[in-house]
Amino acid sequence: MSSKKQLIQPRTLKGFRDFLPAAMIPRERLIDTAKGVYRSFGFSPIDTPSLEYTEVLLGKGGAETDKQMYRFTDHGGRDVGMRFDLTVPFARFAAQHIGTLGTPFKRYHVGPVWRGENTQRGRYREFIQCDFDTIGTTSTTSDVEAALVIHELFRAIGFERFTIRINDRRLLTGLLESLDLLEQQTSVLRVLDKLDKAGPGAVASELKDGVGLSEAQVSAVLEFAQLEGSPAALLEAIEPLVRGAEVGLAGHSGLATLFEAATAAGVPAERIKLDPSIARGLDYYTGAIFETFLDDLPGIGSCCSGGRYDDLATLYTKQDLPGVGASLGVDRLLAAMEELGMIEAQSAPCPVFMPMLEKDRLGDYLALARELRAAGVGVELYPEPRKLGAQLKYADRRGFALAVIAGSSEFESGTCQLKDLRAKEGVEVARGDLAARIGELL
Amino acid sequence: MSSKKQLIQPRTLKGFRDFLPAAMIPRERLIDTAKGVYRSFGFSPIDTPSLEYTEVLLGKGGAETDKQMYRFTDHGGRDVGMRFDLTVPFARFAAQHIGTLGTPFKRYHVGPVWRGENTQRGRYREFIQCDFDTIGTTSTTSDVEAALVIHELFRAIGFERFTIRINDRRLLTGLLESLDLLEQQTSVLRVLDKLDKAGPGAVASELKDGVGLSEAQVSAVLEFAQLEGSPAALLEAIEPLVRGAEVGLAGHSGLATLFEAATAAGVPAERIKLDPSIARGLDYYTGAIFETFLDDLPGIGSCCSGGRYDDLATLYTKQDLPGVGASLGVDRLLAAMEELGMIEAQSAPCPVFMPMLEKDRLGDYLALARELRAAGVGVELYPEPRKLGAQLKYADRRGFALAVIAGSSEFESGTCQLKDLRAKEGVEVARGDLAARIGELL
Repeated sequence: MSSKKQLIQPRTLKGFRDFLPAAMIPRERLIDTAKGVYRSFGFSPIDTPSLEYTEVLLGKGGAETDKQMYRFTDHGGRDVGMRFDLTVPFARFAAQHIGTLGTPFKRYHVGPVWRGENTQRGRYREFIQCDFDTIGTTSTTSDVEAALVIHELFRAIGFERFTIRINDRRLLTGLLESLDLLEQQTSVLRVLDKLDKAGPGAVASELKDGVGLSEAQVSAVLEFAQLEGSPAALLEAIEPLVRGAEVGLAGHSGLATLFEAATAAGVPAERIKLDPSIARGLDYYTGAIFETFLDDLPGIGSCCSGGRYDDLATLYTKQDLPGVGASLGVDRLLAAMEELGMIEAQSAPCPVFMPMLEKDRLGDYLALARELRAAGVGVELYPEPRKLGAQLKYADRRGFALAVIAGSSEFESGTCQLKDLRAKEGVEVARGDLAARIGELL
Repeated sequence: MSSKKQLIQPRTLKGFRDFLPAAMIPRERLIDTAKGVYRSFGFSPIDTPSLEYTEVLLGKGGAETDKQMYRFTDHGGRDVGMRFDLTVPFARFAAQHIGTLGTPFKRYHVGPVWRGENTQRGRYREFIQCDFDTIGTTSTTSDVEAALVIHELFRAIGFERFTIRINDRRLLTGLLESLDLLEQQTSVLRVLDKLDKAGPGAVASELKDGVGLSEAQVSAVLEFAQLEGSPAALLEAIEPLVRGAEVGLAGHSGLATLFEAATAAGVPAERIKLDPSIARGLDYYTGAIFETFLDDLPGIGSCCSGGRYDDLATLYTKQDLPGVGASLGVDRLLAAMEELGMIEAQSAPCPVFMPMLEKDRLGDYLALARELRAAGVGVELYPEPRKLGAQLKYADRRGFALAVIAGSSEFESGTCQLKDLRAKEGVEVARGDLAARIGELL
């Protein structure tokens, strides 16, 4: 029997997270930065429902995600599911609206997705995806642009040392065709995808014993995947290997255009590499493929991946919708930024704290705060006239950079104390100069 | 039997929406504006899970929302639900984390909520809530600040003609106490809440026949609710009516402070009114209450409502967490903005369109676009070298303001054509002046 006053235990479900301000402020900043970069290249925001018909989300079915989908019957008896990625809803969206939207169509989409998967190793059951895609064109321009978006994005977030590794599925297809291994392509690529983590020995064994390749085939595949050098040198080395296959030559030519254009557009050579070992696990990709690694934390894996596909929405429409896009790994990137000390432990939502010293001066405090906000400076006013020390302790804990301190004598003389809470230094400033002085200190 | 090639019908669930760019761009802009204003007052972002234990979400249960909640059993056999508002999760969040966060704590929270309710009259089963609250203080400063946040918010969105109507539950309680109607308070307030829409005649009948008030009690309640005048005049008229009840006097004093401080902080008198008829439907509120109406579309109802409450998280913790906050009606406001012509029918995610005239110049186009982006000007480059007319038609359809047109001769002479797509005018501009000239035109 529960008594009336028994409390409900405040707790969250396993795999789900509360975001406190210290985590949410950098998170929101990262997402805003991504949206700004996407927009600057002409990508438009869209949104789709969190819940969709199960039939729409599962499509052909059979994928791992099917079992992980949160699925139930709604109030109207419909079989519904919570979206497990933003790609399937985008395919449905494109099939439904492309007539209105026209092509090419460039969209970004930032939103939560849900997977009831095992929560080990920093995996969550609810997480944000942050995708951009161009559909309705096969032009290499859009492939180059995807690489440029990734480059600008990482720079805008604050990274200087990162590498976009690029390959083209068609090179791999061409190689496998020339080795008479086209039928085993999916299995070979799945195994090859492990090269970075498992090493060439393990990959060789699995290709031989698991997939059934001959010694010569294993050597050829591994030799290709382990090629190193500048894009120009690699393209020269690869050309003879794929010469026999039209698809391989198309991939070769696409990569040549891509690297030339990216260089012309100002991407430094050390940030963009041709890497024949990049395979990407998914069947979906058919052209250029991208992965992005942080030079100071390569072990964390790719923080932004994507590629070109032949047809986005084949399940929902007969219209061909080829495209190219990538997805920013928000959780992984934030974890990396924290590990690299790029996120301040404390962060206030605005720079200035204003203690309240005299209750009768409420109107004066509010007017002063409003003046600063009108000048573009965010201010938090403490709501009660407590001791100054206690209020400054609150400000320290919240991570404010500056405090503007005023009482009756300051309000009457048109001045205030401007205190740098980091340097613990204060100066008296005329009210008319306050916003400018704050600007200098920030 | 379905054939392999049978398509899945691309459709969304009833009550759920796709947002195309034309709807999503103003939506994202509105939400960004709200977040910016919240931050400028020191409110920090938080987030909570979309899914929670049913026990946590339903609390005492019995509310209308219970039946509307999307509820199911998850993979681990847990009874879970999708959040139907942001208030209940915030209460749970506060109970769980307030020790870490400290008080006062100011948060904003923007996110989707789900209600499987009837979809008539522009109601949706998934919609965004956009709330801000200050908890852990009973200071009137936070009440005033809530009104100031609403005022700055509507101004920042682009409204000049709006009215924040303010009342205090304690005035109503004081009046009802003096009329010996405290026990019927909830019923009386629910009926009074309809005054604006149903009119005094219908409200009088319902108070008499439905709630059982005497003629004299009905007159006293309606007379109070229909008082009009400046805040100062109203406070003078109300004082004798609540003089007998301590709670009424406390409300009177709170409102006096609130209006005085808001005026001192620069809120124009025509935008902030004391309105004794504002009751708010919910039991929850115990002090100042707010509603916000657009002067040009009053019939659309309140676009931002809220108030003060005594205890946020009583279900989850013994710690008292008084607070004050409000919620911006995002859907309602966007509908109003559309009706008032404040949203452009077309809107591109960035201002400049760049047609591609020569495929061989890809690197030059990308470099020029990058120059503009580095100067803060977003540019979309068309991915293929189609006819200029076709590309400009695409740009028109997308709503771009300007086009930067260049081919070999322009790249060689270091110039380009800058075309205003709205005025259909073009000029030749030196490349070095381009960003500045674009800035002048926007």
